[in-house]
Amino acid sequence: MKSISELVDGDHLTAQFLVNGVTKGVTTASRTYLTVNFQDASGTMDGKKWDIASGDEDLFVPGNIVQVEVEVISYKNSLQMKILSGSPLSQENIDFTRFVPSSPIPKAELEKKLNAYVASLKDPDLHKLIDYLVKLHYKDLLDYPAAVRNHHNFASGLLYHSLSMADDAEALCKLYPSLNRDILVAGCLIHDIGKTVELSGPVATKYTLEGKLLGHISIMQAEVREAAHSLKIEGEIPVIMEHMVLSHHNKTVFGSAVEPETREALALAMIDDFDAKMNILDKAYAGVKPGDWTQKVFAFDDRYFYLPLYTDKKD
Amino acid sequence: MKSISELVDGDHLTAQFLVNGVTKGVTTASRTYLTVNFQDASGTMDGKKWDIASGDEDLFVPGNIVQVEVEVISYKNSLQMKILSGSPLSQENIDFTRFVPSSPIPKAELEKKLNAYVASLKDPDLHKLIDYLVKLHYKDLLDYPAAVRNHHNFASGLLYHSLSMADDAEALCKLYPSLNRDILVAGCLIHDIGKTVELSGPVATKYTLEGKLLGHISIMQAEVREAAHSLKIEGEIPVIMEHMVLSHHNKTVFGSAVEPETREALALAMIDDFDAKMNILDKAYAGVKPGDWTQKVFAFDDRYFYLPLYTDKKD
Amino acid sequence: MKSISELVDGDHLTAQFLVNGVTKGVTTASRTYLTVNFQDASGTMDGKKWDIASGDEDLFVPGNIVQVEVEVISYKNSLQMKILSGSPLSQENIDFTRFVPSSPIPKAELEKKLNAYVASLKDPDLHKLIDYLVKLHYKDLLDYPAAVRNHHNFASGLLYHSLSMADDAEALCKLYPSLNRDILVAGCLIHDIGKTVELSGPVATKYTLEGKLLGHISIMQAEVREAAHSLKIEGEIPVIMEHMVLSHHNKTVFGSAVEPETREALALAMIDDFDAKMNILDKAYAGVKPGDWTQKVFAFDDRYFYLPLYTDKKD
Amino acid sequence: MKSISELVDGDHLTAQFLVNGVTKGVTTASRTYLTVNFQDASGTMDGKKWDIASGDEDLFVPGNIVQVEVEVISYKNSLQMKILSGSPLSQENIDFTRFVPSSPIPKAELEKKLNAYVASLKDPDLHKLIDYLVKLHYKDLLDYPAAVRNHHNFASGLLYHSLSMADDAEALCKLYPSLNRDILVAGCLIHDIGKTVELSGPVATKYTLEGKLLGHISIMQAEVREAAHSLKIEGEIPVIMEHMVLSHHNKTVFGSAVEPETREALALAMIDDFDAKMNILDKAYAGVKPGDWTQKVFAFDDRYFYLPLYTDKKD
Amino acid sequence: MKSISELVDGDHLTAQFLVNGVTKGVTTASRTYLTVNFQDASGTMDGKKWDIASGDEDLFVPGNIVQVEVEVISYKNSLQMKILSGSPLSQENIDFTRFVPSSPIPKAELEKKLNAYVASLKDPDLHKLIDYLVKLHYKDLLDYPAAVRNHHNFASGLLYHSLSMADDAEALCKLYPSLNRDILVAGCLIHDIGKTVELSGPVATKYTLEGKLLGHISIMQAEVREAAHSLKIEGEIPVIMEHMVLSHHNKTVFGSAVEPETREALALAMIDDFDAKMNILDKAYAGVKPGDWTQKVFAFDDRYFYLPLYTDKKD
Amino acid sequence: MKSISELVDGDHLTAQFLVNGVTKGVTTASRTYLTVNFQDASGTMDGKKWDIASGDEDLFVPGNIVQVEVEVISYKNSLQMKILSGSPLSQENIDFTRFVPSSPIPKAELEKKLNAYVASLKDPDLHKLIDYLVKLHYKDLLDYPAAVRNHHNFASGLLYHSLSMADDAEALCKLYPSLNRDILVAGCLIHDIGKTVELSGPVATKYTLEGKLLGHISIMQAEVREAAHSLKIEGEIPVIMEHMVLSHHNKTVFGSAVEPETREALALAMIDDFDAKMNILDKAYAGVKPGDWTQKVFAFDDRYFYLPLYTDKKD
Repeated sequence: MKSISELVDGDHLTAQFLVNGVTKGVTTASRTYLTVNFQDASGTMDGKKWDIASGDEDLFVPGNIVQVEVEVISYKNSLQMKILSGSPLSQENIDFTRFVPSSPIPKAELEKKLNAYVASLKDPDLHKLIDYLVKLHYKDLLDYPAAVRNHHNFASGLLYHSLSMADDAEALCKLYPSLNRDILVAGCLIHDIGKTVELSGPVATKYTLEGKLLGHISIMQAEVREAAHSLKIEGEIPVIMEHMVLSHHNKTVFGSAVEPETREALALAMIDDFDAKMNILDKAYAGVKPGDWTQKVFAFDDRYFYLPLYTDKKD
Repeated sequence: MKSISELVDGDHLTAQFLVNGVTKGVTTASRTYLTVNFQDASGTMDGKKWDIASGDEDLFVPGNIVQVEVEVISYKNSLQMKILSGSPLSQENIDFTRFVPSSPIPKAELEKKLNAYVASLKDPDLHKLIDYLVKLHYKDLLDYPAAVRNHHNFASGLLYHSLSMADDAEALCKLYPSLNRDILVAGCLIHDIGKTVELSGPVATKYTLEGKLLGHISIMQAEVREAAHSLKIEGEIPVIMEHMVLSHHNKTVFGSAVEPETREALALAMIDDFDAKMNILDKAYAGVKPGDWTQKVFAFDDRYFYLPLYTDKKD
Repeated sequence: MKSISELVDGDHLTAQFLVNGVTKGVTTASRTYLTVNFQDASGTMDGKKWDIASGDEDLFVPGNIVQVEVEVISYKNSLQMKILSGSPLSQENIDFTRFVPSSPIPKAELEKKLNAYVASLKDPDLHKLIDYLVKLHYKDLLDYPAAVRNHHNFASGLLYHSLSMADDAEALCKLYPSLNRDILVAGCLIHDIGKTVELSGPVATKYTLEGKLLGHISIMQAEVREAAHSLKIEGEIPVIMEHMVLSHHNKTVFGSAVEPETREALALAMIDDFDAKMNILDKAYAGVKPGDWTQKVFAFDDRYFYLPLYTDKKD
Repeated sequence: MKSISELVDGDHLTAQFLVNGVTKGVTTASRTYLTVNFQDASGTMDGKKWDIASGDEDLFVPGNIVQVEVEVISYKNSLQMKILSGSPLSQENIDFTRFVPSSPIPKAELEKKLNAYVASLKDPDLHKLIDYLVKLHYKDLLDYPAAVRNHHNFASGLLYHSLSMADDAEALCKLYPSLNRDILVAGCLIHDIGKTVELSGPVATKYTLEGKLLGHISIMQAEVREAAHSLKIEGEIPVIMEHMVLSHHNKTVFGSAVEPETREALALAMIDDFDAKMNILDKAYAGVKPGDWTQKVFAFDDRYFYLPLYTDKKD
Repeated sequence: MKSISELVDGDHLTAQFLVNGVTKGVTTASRTYLTVNFQDASGTMDGKKWDIASGDEDLFVPGNIVQVEVEVISYKNSLQMKILSGSPLSQENIDFTRFVPSSPIPKAELEKKLNAYVASLKDPDLHKLIDYLVKLHYKDLLDYPAAVRNHHNFASGLLYHSLSMADDAEALCKLYPSLNRDILVAGCLIHDIGKTVELSGPVATKYTLEGKLLGHISIMQAEVREAAHSLKIEGEIPVIMEHMVLSHHNKTVFGSAVEPETREALALAMIDDFDAKMNILDKAYAGVKPGDWTQKVFAFDDRYFYLPLYTDKKD
Repeated sequence: MKSISELVDGDHLTAQFLVNGVTKGVTTASRTYLTVNFQDASGTMDGKKWDIASGDEDLFVPGNIVQVEVEVISYKNSLQMKILSGSPLSQENIDFTRFVPSSPIPKAELEKKLNAYVASLKDPDLHKLIDYLVKLHYKDLLDYPAAVRNHHNFASGLLYHSLSMADDAEALCKLYPSLNRDILVAGCLIHDIGKTVELSGPVATKYTLEGKLLGHISIMQAEVREAAHSLKIEGEIPVIMEHMVLSHHNKTVFGSAVEPETREALALAMIDDFDAKMNILDKAYAGVKPGDWTQKVFAFDDRYFYLPLYTDKKD
C-alpha cells in the first residue's frame, strides 16, 4: 500500500490514516464540506469531503485512525485528496508507529545507548541524580518527539536529539579538555525531559496546560530540584544541573530563564542549537535537488537555503 | 549621636558604623590608603584612611561593625570622611537594625497584616499552599529586603512590598470584579519569597550562588511545585500559582520565564511594577525640593524626574 | 427580534442593521457579488449578496442603516448571512444606539460622575482648565468610543474609560499618599479627549485626517496649551497637564511624545495601561468557558489567555 | 589677545572668559579646589584654581564673564589652565558674541535671506501663517543656537541651519518636480522654532522646564495650531504644517510624534538629517589632518571618521 | 491597442503580453485552471484560464510573450482577465521594451549623461578606475532595472537612478563645499553596478545564484578591488571607492557591510536613500487623487501616505 | 628573570619589555609624568615614570622594546611599576616572541597540520583555490593573532583558531554525514585570512586603514573571487567559498555581509562561534579558583562566569 509521500496526481486508493485536524467550510454555492488533514508515518495531506455523510463529523475527529477511499488531485501546486467515503476502525490493537514518523535509529538501539551514557557518569551524586530523572520519565523519554513542529518532531525524537547531543559532547570534550565531559553529557541527557510534561505525547502532539503555563524549562528545573531533595544530594551538583536546564536556550530572548554562567552550560546551549539546526536543515532539504533552493525556513527567519551541486558528488 | 544622613562638612565625631565595602589605593606619592564605605540606618558614606595602621586591614572588613573617629569633608560635591582612627567592637549583642535602613511600618505590624491576609484566603487548597510557603520562610520573610539596590532595599522590605501589593490588589479587585481576589492576593504574598534564597540576608546583602545561577523566580516556582507535591494538592491551583510566580516580571525581557496568560497573572505583574516604581520614585525624590529635578534614575533609563511646585501645597 | 449575537445556523429573518463595510467579489463562475459587514449593538456579521439587484450598490454603503431579509449559515466555523433582499430605511429618527455597542454603565450616570469629578478639583487654575476642556468637547466626550478597535470601543467608551481610571486614581492615592490626587484625577479626565478630534464619531468610527496626521496626543496637548492661553493661566499647572497628556502612553515606542517625568505622569500612564488591558481581557474572555483558552489577543503580542477553572467558583 | 583655540602649552596670559560650569574637588591632601570650564567664541578649556581665595566661589559662577590670569599646561594629552587669580567684570555692556561661537555667515545676511524666503511663499494662507510664526519669535530666531551640544551649537545656529535646509530644499525641488517647493521651504523655516522655547538662550544654553517636559516638537506644533486659530486659517495648510513639525525627526525612535505621511514631510525630515549630519562632521573633522581619524562621534554611534588624503588636493 | 493600465471592466480584446508568472489551481468543483500574470510596459494584471486547452501549459511559461484573447472583469476591487484563448508568438524580433516599463528619460540621453559624468572626473586614478568599471558592464548598465520590485524597477532604471543621484551630488556639493564632488559623483555612478551580476536582466527580473549568495554590494567591492589590481592603481582611491560601495546602504541593518566612515561615503548613502524614497513615493502616489491616501507602502513600514489638496494647485 | 605574570608587590628588577602604549599626565602638583603600558609574552602591566628624563619621550614609544629598572607596587588592588630609569635597546636581533604571548601549540606543529589539511582536499578546484590562498598569505598566516583583543590574541593565534575549527569540523562531519567535509574544512582554513590585511601584524597589533574601511570579511571575499579569476576556476566552488567567507559571522548584526544559506556555511559560522567562545572562556577563567567567579566578560554582555568546584576533581 502506498504511503502518503508516495501518492501522485490521479491515484485512487483505499487506505488508513490518522486524522490530524478537521475544519468545516461552505462552498460559494452554500454547501458545507469538511477539510481533513490526514497523516501517516511518511507525511501529511489535506483531503476534502464535499458531501458530508451522516456520521462523518463523528468519524473525522483529530486523533482517530480511519479507513477512507480517496482520489488524489493537484490543487495550487500541491496534492490533495478528494474523500469519496470513510469508515471507522477499531482504535485498539492499531500499531501507532504506522501513523507517526519514526526515528532514523531504532528505539531499541537508542535505549541501549541511553543506558550506556547514564552508566558512564562517574561522580556518584551526578550518576544518582541523572539515573533517577531518566527512570522517572523512562517510558515517555523513549517515545516522545522533541517538538510539535520545529525539529526532531518524530517518535523518539526527544531521545534521538538528546543522544545526538551527547555524541557531540563526547567529540568536543576530546578537543576542548577544559570541558567537563560528565557534566556536559549529563546535561545533554536531561535538558529536554521536561517536554514529556509539556507535550501531550507522540501522537497528534499538543501542548498541555502545564506546558503552556510553565514551559519545559521551568518544569524540568523544578524536577531536578525536587529530585535532589528526595535523594538528599547536597552541594553544587544539583544547582549546576538546574542552571544548565534553565539556560539551555542560551539567550533569554530564546527562552532561557537565565543565561549560561558556566563553561558546560554554555557548551550545552551551543550543542543543542547546532543539533537542532542540523535537523531543521535535514527537513528543509528533504526532496530538494542539488542546484535548487528550499522553501522559506521559519527557524532561519524565513531564509531560503541552497543545496549546492557538490552534494551530488559526495559519495 | 548624629546619623550619617545628618553629617555636615566640618563635623568631627566618634561613631559606630557597618562596613559595607573596602578598597585599597595608592597615592601619587606611592603611599597606600583605604577607602571604606560606611553604613548606618540612615544612609552610607565613604571614608579614607590615609595612614594604614597595623590591624586596619583586619578591622575594615565588609560586614563588621566598627567604632571610628572621623572628620567630615566635602569632596567633588559629596561628603566624605577622613578616618582618624578605628577600633573593633564585639559583634555580639549589637542591634543590627541600627545599621540597616528599616521599614516605614514596624515589623510587628507587617507580621500581623501578613497573617491576616493568609487567613483571608478561602479556597482550602490555596490557603494550605500559601500558608505552607509563608511558614517555610517565615523568619526570613519578616527580615529580608526586597532587593540589593533597586527598590524596597531596607530591612523587612520584601514583606513591606508584598503587603503593599496585596493592598493594591484588594483595592483594584473592588473596581474590577472579574479579578479573583484570593488568587491575586495569594500571588502578591508569595511572588518574591524566592528572594530569601536568592539574597544573602538583610545586612550587607549580596546574591548567593543559587541566586546568581537560578534567580528568585525559578527558585520560587520550584518551591511551589514541591510544596504542592508534599501537600498532595492536585488540580489547577498549584499550576496557576507557579505560572504567576514565573510571569510576575511581565515580559520575558524583564526576566519572566513565561509571560502572563491569566488575568490574575497579568494583574500581579502590573501591580508589582507599579509598587516598585512608586518606591523607586520615593527614593529618587528623597531630598529634592519642589521645582528641582532628581538625579538620573537608573530604573527609568536614566531619566530625570521633576518635583512640581504643587507638591508644596499638598497638605 | 433576535440581535446578531443571538443568531444561529439556519435562522431566517428580516431585520435592520448598520452597514459597517462592503467589498465586491467575483465567483469562479465570473458572477459579481457583495460582501456586506452588518452591525448592531450586540456584534457584527458578514453577509453575502450573491445576485446583485439594481440599487444594491447604493443601498449597501458604510454608515447606512438598512432593512434586510437574510438566512444564517455556517462557513469555515463562523456564521454568515445569505442576503435574500434589502431595502432602504429613512435614516432620520433612527435610534443609533440600537446599532452600536453601548457602555455597561448608563450614559446619564457617567455624566453625573464626570461632573462630580470635575467639581472635586480644588486648585482654582486646575479646576478652571479642566472644566473648560471638558465643556469644550462635552457632547462628544459623552458619546465617543475610546478606540476604533482596541479597547472600550463602544458608545461612551471614552468617558467610561476615563472615569474608570479616575476611580483607580482615587483608590491608589489613598495607598500612596505622595501622589497628588487632584492632578492625577485631572489627568485621567482629559488625557484622551483628543480622540474626539482624532476619531470620526461613535458610529462606523474611523480616523479623521487630523487624527492620522497628528494623533490624539498632540491634538490634546495643543488644546491644553491654547486653553491656558485663553484662560490666562500661568505657572506650572498647564505645562504639567500638557506633559501628562504627551506622556500618557509611557514609553515613546508606545506613542508618547515624551516619557513621564513626574510621579503623577507616570502613575497616569500606568493606570491607563491597566484599565485598557483589563478591558481588552474582558473582550478576549467573552464567551470563553473556564478551562478553555481565548483566541490570540493582538494587544498581547498574539498570546492566548487561559480562563482558570476557579472562575466558576467565584460567586 | 589669544583666543582659547590658539593657546599652547606654556602660555601665561590675562584674559576674559565666560564661565560655563564649575565643580569643587578635594586633593588627596584634603585641600579643596575648583575646576572651572571657560569659554570664548573659539572654544572651551578647563582651568584649576588650586587655592581658593575668598570671593572665588561667588566669582566663578556659570554665566559670569570674568577676568583671569592663567598658565596653560598639558594634562593627559589635553591642555588645561592653572588659574593664578580671577577678578569680577561688570556684566553690562559686554559684547556676548565675543564669548559664544558665532555663525559662519553674518547675522544680518541670515536675516535678509530669511525675509526673502518668507516673502517668496505664494499661497496666501501659507505666507500668512509662516510670516506670523517667524515674527512671533523674530528676535530669538536670529540669536538662538540650534542645539545645546549636538549640531549648529553657535549663535544664530538655529537660523543658519533652517536657511541651509531651505537652500537644500530649493536645489532638490528643481531635481524632483513632484515636491511642492513652497510647502517644503516653509517647513524648513519653522520646523525648529520651538527651540526658542525649549532652550534658555544663546549664552550658556540649557533646557528650560517646558523644554524638558514638552520638547520643541510638541511646543511648535501647538504654536502652529494656535496661530492658525488666531489667523482664522482653515483647511489643510495648518494641519499639513503641524504634521511636518511633528514628523521632522522622521522615525518616532528619533523623537517624531508621528512619522512622515506626505512627500514634503518626508523630504523635510531627510533634509534636516542631512544638514545636521554635515555640520556634525564639520565639527568632528575640525583640526584633523588628511590621513588621520576623528575622535569617536557620538551622533554616529561612536564611530570614527577618516579624513582622506584627497582632501588636501581639493583646491 | 490599449495597454494594461488603460483596461476597464468589460473590455474584450486581443493583445500581446509578457508572461510574468503562472500558478495552477483547482476549483471547488475539482476542475483545474491557470492563473497567469501578464505584463506590458504599462503594468501587470492577472488572468484566469478556466478551461485548460492542450498546449496551454507550454504556452503560459514565465518569460514568454504570447497573444491572447481576453475579457476584463472586476474581482475583489481589482481588475482581472478571463482568458478566452492563447497562441504562441515567435520570440524573435520582438521589441522587449513594449513589455517592460521604461525609463522616463530616453536611454540615449541617459547614456550621453553617463559619459559626460565619467569624463568630468579629474583625478587620473579615479577617472581610470570608474571608466574601466563602467565600460566593463556598459551594455547591462544601460539596460538593467535598479531592483526586482522596490524602486526604479524599469528598463534602464539602474542608470536612471545612478544619474539622478549624481545630479543630487552636484547640487549638494555646491551647498556643502567640504564635500569632494568627484569622489561623490564617482560613487553615485558605480555604487550599484553589482546589480548587473545580482539580477538576471531587464525582462522578468530575478536574483541570480551569485546575487543571492553574495549580494550586489560584495560583488561590486570585489570588482573595484580587482580592477584596481589590474590597472595597477595604488594608494587610497580604490580603498575609498570600495568603502563607499560597501557602506552605501548606511547602517549594517540595511545591508551595508561596514558603515560610512568618510564624509563622501555618508553623503552617498544618504543621497541613495533620498532618491530611492522619492521614486518609491512616485510609484505609491501613482493614480492617487489629491485628498486621498496611498495603499500601504512596504518601504515605509506599511505606512499610508496622504496626497495633499495643494498638489492640485501646483501648476 | 621574572616575567610580568610572576611579579609581586615589592619586586625591584631590571628587565626588557615591549612598549604597548603611552599617555602623559600631570599630578595635582602640576608635574608631568608618563604612564607606560609594558608587555612580555606572559602579560601586560602599567608603569609610571614620575620624573621625565630627557630622552624618555623618544624612548617610551609604542612598538619599542626597552630596558628598564622598576619597582613593583600595589595600587587599587592591581600591581603597577614605578619606573626608576629606562634605556634604549637595539631593536635588531631581538626575538619578538619573548614579548608577545605565544600559541599553546608550537608554530612548526601548526604549520605541519595546516599543510596536511590543505593536502586532504580532494576536489581539484577546491584544492587549487585553497592552496593558492594559503600560499599567498603563508608567512602572515603562520604569525598573526586572530584578533586585537577579543579571542586567540597571541602569535599564530589566527592559525591556531583556524586549525582548531578544522578539527571540530572533522569530528562533527563524522556525526552529521550530510555535511560536506572538504567544503567545511576549506572554509575553516581560509575564513579569517583577511585578518592578515585587516591587522598590522603580530606585535602591538592594530587595525590597518583597509581593515577599518573594509573589514576582513569583505577583503577575503574579494581575494577568493580574484583568485578564482586568476586560476580560471569556474562553476560553483568559488561562489560557495565566497559565500562562506561573507556569512561566517552568522547574523548580519554580528558582521556577516549575508547570512548562511548553505548547510556548510551555517556549520562554519557555528563552529567559529564555538571555538571563539571556548577561547574567550579560557582567558576569562585564567587565574580564577574553583568556587569563584570571573570578571565581567565583554563578549558575553558583561556577564560573570562561575568556575564550579567540580573543576578541581577533573584529573
